[in-house]
Amino acid sequence: MTFRLKILGSNAAAPAHNRNQTSQLLQVRNSVFLIDCGEGTQLQLKKHKVKFSKINYIFISHLHGDHYYGLIGLISTMHLYGRTTTLNLFGPPGLLEIISLQLKYSDTSLKFDINFKEWTPEMSEVIFENNYMTVETFPLNHRISCSGFVFKEKPLSKKIIKENLPADILPSQIAILKKGQDVKDGNGEILFAASDYTSDPRDPFIYAFCSDTKFTTDIIPYVKNADLIYHEATFMEDMADRAELTYHSTAKQAAELAKKSNAKKLILGHFSTRYKELEPVLAEAKEIFENSYLGLEGTDFILLE
Amino acid sequence: MTFRLKILGSNAAAPAHNRNQTSQLLQVRNSVFLIDCGEGTQLQLKKHKVKFSKINYIFISHLHGDHYYGLIGLISTMHLYGRTTTLNLFGPPGLLEIISLQLKYSDTSLKFDINFKEWTPEMSEVIFENNYMTVETFPLNHRISCSGFVFKEKPLSKKIIKENLPADILPSQIAILKKGQDVKDGNGEILFAASDYTSDPRDPFIYAFCSDTKFTTDIIPYVKNADLIYHEATFMEDMADRAELTYHSTAKQAAELAKKSNAKKLILGHFSTRYKELEPVLAEAKEIFENSYLGLEGTDFILLE
Repeated sequence: MTFRLKILGSNAAAPAHNRNQTSQLLQVRNSVFLIDCGEGTQLQLKKHKVKFSKINYIFISHLHGDHYYGLIGLISTMHLYGRTTTLNLFGPPGLLEIISLQLKYSDTSLKFDINFKEWTPEMSEVIFENNYMTVETFPLNHRISCSGFVFKEKPLSKKIIKENLPADILPSQIAILKKGQDVKDGNGEILFAASDYTSDPRDPFIYAFCSDTKFTTDIIPYVKNADLIYHEATFMEDMADRAELTYHSTAKQAAELAKKSNAKKLILGHFSTRYKELEPVLAEAKEIFENSYLGLEGTDFILLE
Repeated sequence: MTFRLKILGSNAAAPAHNRNQTSQLLQVRNSVFLIDCGEGTQLQLKKHKVKFSKINYIFISHLHGDHYYGLIGLISTMHLYGRTTTLNLFGPPGLLEIISLQLKYSDTSLKFDINFKEWTPEMSEVIFENNYMTVETFPLNHRISCSGFVFKEKPLSKKIIKENLPADILPSQIAILKKGQDVKDGNGEILFAASDYTSDPRDPFIYAFCSDTKFTTDIIPYVKNADLIYHEATFMEDMADRAELTYHSTAKQAAELAKKSNAKKLILGHFSTRYKELEPVLAEAKEIFENSYLGLEGTDFILLE
């Protein structure tokens, strides 16, 4: 029942101070999602011993290079390593055109398929769903079309209180209890009441990834109540004008967004190269939202092992 | 009068064993040439403290990703760093189309111009010339169109033997001597004979870069007598069949080419990831051509400081 996030890159625009460009790896149970893929992401994956073959889903938030220039290299290496499993790629219009052009000129016929799901950056839509989770996009406010993502578990089954179960109960009856329903006999009489044998499960986990964006409360309906929220914090508050101008946010604004959206934990990232030391960035966020963290390379945020 | 080469990447296909993908930096006097630009080249440049602003010429040998996926990131970072100087980009057909598409989708209007010189990969042509050197392409034999480059100094002026010069000689007369011509008076009488006041200069330096290629003696007319020759050595001789199949060369073949072309020094590179240790690769080449070297990251080959 894993739910864990690993940061692979935290710097804005260009790599600096041993900080790479944006990339994150989210594992939810057996599904491994790569979120953005700045240049050199394949090296970061190697460094952190992530098997490329485990990555079946890649999401690219927008087409600024620091968020996707590493994608074609990663795809090429997957091909060289003999990958045959389909890769599911989610991105804005244009991404597949770029990748296809590069593959055309290298005369590469990939050994695996790329299933491409293009979304409409101006709206919110569920772009991925399996039996235990969904991924929904939402529009951010950046210089070019840019989307955020909400990774959300589906509601969990009721938890069975094993010590209460009678010895003769059938597996099919337990399955009914797990749904929160009472088990009845042919006459509609209750044999086993769900309330006697089950307890409520934990709430589904939510991870909200807010890629490059100007501060905007418009996104709160999408990201509210997240267990983990990542929000870019390119600048500090004394450069709020610069943030506004470049369609980025400050650490304070990231913290305000986390607070207003009732997040449990905030991860800061996409730091401007001008900040070699990041403690002041963190301190600025913590003044507003105590449970703030720097999303530095190699850091794990684990909701469930 | 600098003539020096720095290796930035030496691995084939994908990065491995702390070896990057192909990239080299050649400095001839004031001209700094970047030759190929695998993913992460900008990080290698930073590591070796090369100022991006000094690079005015970039040559891409072919459109396999391990030779150019780092280019768009480097261009983007140059833009972020405020570059305004024109960048001269030399590459095969398709390169500018790829770069332009990426810039279009990121809505980036570069602060500097890219002058693009496209060559015809099937032929040899001089694609760059200044007052002291030329760069000539030549066709290699690879799976897709691929060019090698010869960086060649122009013939140098005669060297003046200062201690022989009379005190009253004029600068204009010295200039004539440097050309190897005698200085004459109005009647055609020799005032200063070039042979008395000059000595022969050294031969012009030649660096031949043989990118990905199957072994072929067809390139010898282009690369002959090189002071430095780089030749790919993806495999060792026990995998000659594999080299043939994939349009690559073995270390032995690289050495044979160096020998047949009368090179002074051979640099090996583009090593397959299967070779973690490279001493056997070097040993194989040295059996044929003693003056062979591994072109590993950070290594400098200096003809003139």
